[in-house]
Amino acid sequence: MSVTAAKGFTAAGVVAGIKASGKADLALVVNTGPRAHAAGVFTSNKFTAAPVVWSKKALADGRLAAVVLNSGGANACTGGAGYADTVQTAEWVGAEVGCDTTDVAVCSTGLIGVRLPMDAVLNGIQLAAQDQSTAGGPAAAEAIMTTDTVAKESIHTSPAGWTIGGMAKGAGMLAPALATMLVVITTDADLTSAGLDAALRTATEATFDRTDSDGCMSTNDTVLLLASGAAKIQPDIDQFTEALTGVCADLAKQLLADAEGSAHDIEVNVVGAATEADALAVARAIARSNLFKCAIFGNDPNWGRVLASAGTVDAAFDPEHVDVAFNGVTVFEDGQLGIDRSAVDLSARQVLVELNLHAGQAAASIWTNDLTYDYVKENAEYSS
Amino acid sequence: MSVTAAKGFTAAGVVAGIKASGKADLALVVNTGPRAHAAGVFTSNKFTAAPVVWSKKALADGRLAAVVLNSGGANACTGGAGYADTVQTAEWVGAEVGCDTTDVAVCSTGLIGVRLPMDAVLNGIQLAAQDQSTAGGPAAAEAIMTTDTVAKESIHTSPAGWTIGGMAKGAGMLAPALATMLVVITTDADLTSAGLDAALRTATEATFDRTDSDGCMSTNDTVLLLASGAAKIQPDIDQFTEALTGVCADLAKQLLADAEGSAHDIEVNVVGAATEADALAVARAIARSNLFKCAIFGNDPNWGRVLASAGTVDAAFDPEHVDVAFNGVTVFEDGQLGIDRSAVDLSARQVLVELNLHAGQAAASIWTNDLTYDYVKENAEYSS
Repeated sequence: MSVTAAKGFTAAGVVAGIKASGKADLALVVNTGPRAHAAGVFTSNKFTAAPVVWSKKALADGRLAAVVLNSGGANACTGGAGYADTVQTAEWVGAEVGCDTTDVAVCSTGLIGVRLPMDAVLNGIQLAAQDQSTAGGPAAAEAIMTTDTVAKESIHTSPAGWTIGGMAKGAGMLAPALATMLVVITTDADLTSAGLDAALRTATEATFDRTDSDGCMSTNDTVLLLASGAAKIQPDIDQFTEALTGVCADLAKQLLADAEGSAHDIEVNVVGAATEADALAVARAIARSNLFKCAIFGNDPNWGRVLASAGTVDAAFDPEHVDVAFNGVTVFEDGQLGIDRSAVDLSARQVLVELNLHAGQAAASIWTNDLTYDYVKENAEYSS
Repeated sequence: MSVTAAKGFTAAGVVAGIKASGKADLALVVNTGPRAHAAGVFTSNKFTAAPVVWSKKALADGRLAAVVLNSGGANACTGGAGYADTVQTAEWVGAEVGCDTTDVAVCSTGLIGVRLPMDAVLNGIQLAAQDQSTAGGPAAAEAIMTTDTVAKESIHTSPAGWTIGGMAKGAGMLAPALATMLVVITTDADLTSAGLDAALRTATEATFDRTDSDGCMSTNDTVLLLASGAAKIQPDIDQFTEALTGVCADLAKQLLADAEGSAHDIEVNVVGAATEADALAVARAIARSNLFKCAIFGNDPNWGRVLASAGTVDAAFDPEHVDVAFNGVTVFEDGQLGIDRSAVDLSARQVLVELNLHAGQAAASIWTNDLTYDYVKENAEYSS
């Protein structure tokens, strides 16, 4: 049910005619209230797509009544005309669902540099406004897929009586593959926009921000959180943030599991760091090493490539005293060879790489994928 | 002739027995004087290999009488025992060629984490000391190859009467693929070690430092410059630096042309930047984008991936007013679609990507390769 699991939301996913394939390509999520509080985080790319520029403005007052999402075109690098298309889209949605234009967020994903076919967008908005229902979550999650092979949905139901539901698409992360990451999460808990914003930032920093499929950042990435207040419950903010983090982590793992051409999901866990920033920087450097990622594709517990990547980072540790473990087998210990690498089995999709810097108590993980023939194939042949 | 093109140098390349393949695996370069001035630049990786630690110490006084290089083992992450092996190697070379141990630089390349077979190393040093001659340059260049498919050599002869010659191995750059970059350059010009150091830093900053095959940095990268003074000419330092830069650029291009699995050599040239640092940062971000590199492999002039990479950099420019050209065809101009991408032909190995930021007068290039099936294959199957 994803975005319609929480009370106070309807959704739809329809065939607007934007995609040449004839597949579903437009989704609508409507907050039926009583509240319309919202928060969002967006790509930090300087080449921000028109829908991101618009949605940031729409969110400035902490309110969103509806989100319209299209696949089949990113509306990025399309200039003033592309921005006008986004505003027109928001106006049409506002008219159909009966809300202010400035309460409508717009998300787009697909090819960069191509104008959207606005006749198809209008058609899709009208169809979606008719179709929207409290059972429309799965159809909405289907309609935002591009190179995704499965729809991504997650639900958390609190014993306290409120619910969080979300949907996502994309091949990566908040600094993701150009296959844009779009996430819409809804809740019927009653929270202010400031509370939603704080919870969303905490949750995304610990999840999507630490998911790094291929180090590339989209022009369109968007994560939105809408609260209807329909459960009439003001949740404990710590419990809500923890639940929201869980939903984001679940969606992030689904994104990685479906990442373009990947054969392994890899957690790079750096422990014993002097600071969390050090741990993150080292983990990210390893997760972005093409040589490391190729080794994992080859089921090779290549601790040399882990160390060589870690060694490029300006972090506080003594290279003579580090440990490296693959799936729990410490192949390098205190700067020396450890258990023989033949003891490591990397044949399963899930891989855990642990690096202990022995420099402090801080730790952090980055989640990534391996680098495979199919990644090269998809990205050499798919023009995005 | 490479390292023996300049007067005052002998060299040899021999089969020491380090490599299981039975191919040449040990090279020796000897400066026969009258001078023994030298300079070097090394990897900045924290996991510095034993030979790099040693060679930095040996160079502290600005003198080198000999360089011994082995393929078949990197002697990295081998602890105190590995360092003792490097010192032993320098001692053997000093005894054979009749110089101080501390005037011998040691370079190693190959697998990380494996001790060198010291019997074979001693055998190779003795053979090389016997074989060394003023015709030994090409044999030395052959003996340092690992995954290289061709030896890399370059020579510059000045009308003023001095010569620079160099050899290189590796799949990358000064921040290169784990297939370590080793470069030895010799000259018969008469220069102080301070003069050599300044010239070498200028030359490498403009060449090897701007060559970024796959963004990975080795534990063993070394560039050495030895001057015999045998030409008995003190060169104009600007002319010498320019010629040295030319030799380094030639070697860098040979490294890229032979980079593991590559199908295109790509120059990313950023112009119109506010500062050279901005231009470099933007060019490097593009050169490190896997999505961009896959697109070039697919002969796809994907300006969207160029912009999305540029947009991740904290550089001063207005994203609404940039141009992107592939091989001289401006497909994106002043923030709008330009000439149709079908006019771009990327079938040749050489590709020029130009990004004009329209923010100033500074410019810089990074040279890189595309990301191919063969890169993944070599690095998934070759454990280094």
